[in-house]
Amino acid sequence: MSASLELYAVGGLPMVQPGDDLARLLSDAFAVEGLVPRDGDVVVVAQKIVSKAEGRVVDVATVTPSAEAVQIGAEISKDPRLVEIVLGESRRVVRTRPNLLIVEHRLGMVMANAGVDQSNVAPEDGVHRALLLPVDPDASAERLRAALSETFGVRLAVIVSDSFGRAWRRGTVGVAIGSAGLPSLIDLRGKPDLFGRTLEVSIIGFADEIAAAASLLQGQAGEGRPVVLVRGLRWSAPEAPAAALIRPAEEDLFR
Amino acid sequence: MSASLELYAVGGLPMVQPGDDLARLLSDAFAVEGLVPRDGDVVVVAQKIVSKAEGRVVDVATVTPSAEAVQIGAEISKDPRLVEIVLGESRRVVRTRPNLLIVEHRLGMVMANAGVDQSNVAPEDGVHRALLLPVDPDASAERLRAALSETFGVRLAVIVSDSFGRAWRRGTVGVAIGSAGLPSLIDLRGKPDLFGRTLEVSIIGFADEIAAAASLLQGQAGEGRPVVLVRGLRWSAPEAPAAALIRPAEEDLFR
Repeated sequence: MSASLELYAVGGLPMVQPGDDLARLLSDAFAVEGLVPRDGDVVVVAQKIVSKAEGRVVDVATVTPSAEAVQIGAEISKDPRLVEIVLGESRRVVRTRPNLLIVEHRLGMVMANAGVDQSNVAPEDGVHRALLLPVDPDASAERLRAALSETFGVRLAVIVSDSFGRAWRRGTVGVAIGSAGLPSLIDLRGKPDLFGRTLEVSIIGFADEIAAAASLLQGQAGEGRPVVLVRGLRWSAPEAPAAALIRPAEEDLFR
Repeated sequence: MSASLELYAVGGLPMVQPGDDLARLLSDAFAVEGLVPRDGDVVVVAQKIVSKAEGRVVDVATVTPSAEAVQIGAEISKDPRLVEIVLGESRRVVRTRPNLLIVEHRLGMVMANAGVDQSNVAPEDGVHRALLLPVDPDASAERLRAALSETFGVRLAVIVSDSFGRAWRRGTVGVAIGSAGLPSLIDLRGKPDLFGRTLEVSIIGFADEIAAAASLLQGQAGEGRPVVLVRGLRWSAPEAPAAALIRPAEEDLFR
């Protein structure tokens, strides 16, 4: 367990474009900041720039909405083409309200609008674009982890982060939708407490806590600081991807 | 928005006892660590030591379970006296499974066992004790904030933190059940994004993100580091207590 942590917002990134080598952009941005990654550092990267680099951009004008999308769009006053994009990224619709769908994303996350976002997407050439989540955020994290670790010659971990609304509580918090090189969950079951008694509630959403911490620096309102380096974390649990954070419905007591 | 954050685990606290002056214990512990709180620092204190100092300890042997507690206890194989304590802290039972009740706490939080905990509670004199949440965690935070700010002559914020399980996602994360001196929620609605477009999802669970960050240092398995100092946060939103984080059922789309 660490005694202190440091988190650094990494500025100096250019606008990320489809096809960009994100690991290279990150390496350059670290250099601009004078940050030299060390063994065990965790690089938290906002989903948005991962998606942009991976070209997960849809020109909304090219989308033909299905009958279902047209119907839902009319019900919730949302552009049926955007509804179509959301449905295409989803297994099912959990709930709706005006301009918002809560869905189960194809990857299993329950989230607003399947993560389909129009904010901070440049309206180039007047084209109306929407941004989807990466195809496989754990794989995105692993690619970044491998490339950055090689570039810097150290053992790094990477989290692809997003902000989710929650059941029961107001406000979004940072969560990990992808991770590599660290345990997304840490299972302490069976470990003794201070008095040698077995702990009761003891599986920790480690990667989500790191993403939440990073979110404190990433900002939301146009601040454009999508990358945070977290230094000082220690862990001994085995690595597990962010997919392990998704709770199967049958074991979920909190709905 | 900050460019970097530092988090320090504060060691050196003695076992907290009912009636202890927690602000004084914290001040002494800061001194031992050589930590001098600064304007804007946030002190995150685990619920457990707040509850202990406030004497929120129940001798389980003194509890007479109600008929309902006996019935639930039999159904979920849990000591009916503990069930009685949980029910006494709850508005309603949301769900049960063996040895676990998910309830709506009297303060509105949906959580496991109403926060009634036996881990890290010293079994003094062989007595079986359970620990309840503080009576009013926002008020607890405010008392600590006032006392610590006066002691150090700086403007501090305080969060009383706990770890909650969640709907849809595995693993517990740190959350704020009490806060003072900071905005538990930050409402960015209407703020422009990088391209001047209005943000869509934009109320941030600020205090929960801070609690999650602190949780990375607090540890769970008997490490006894219940206090974390967070340095470098900046905010301009108005202060709001942790009670503001509780989402009324009628606006909850994520259940």
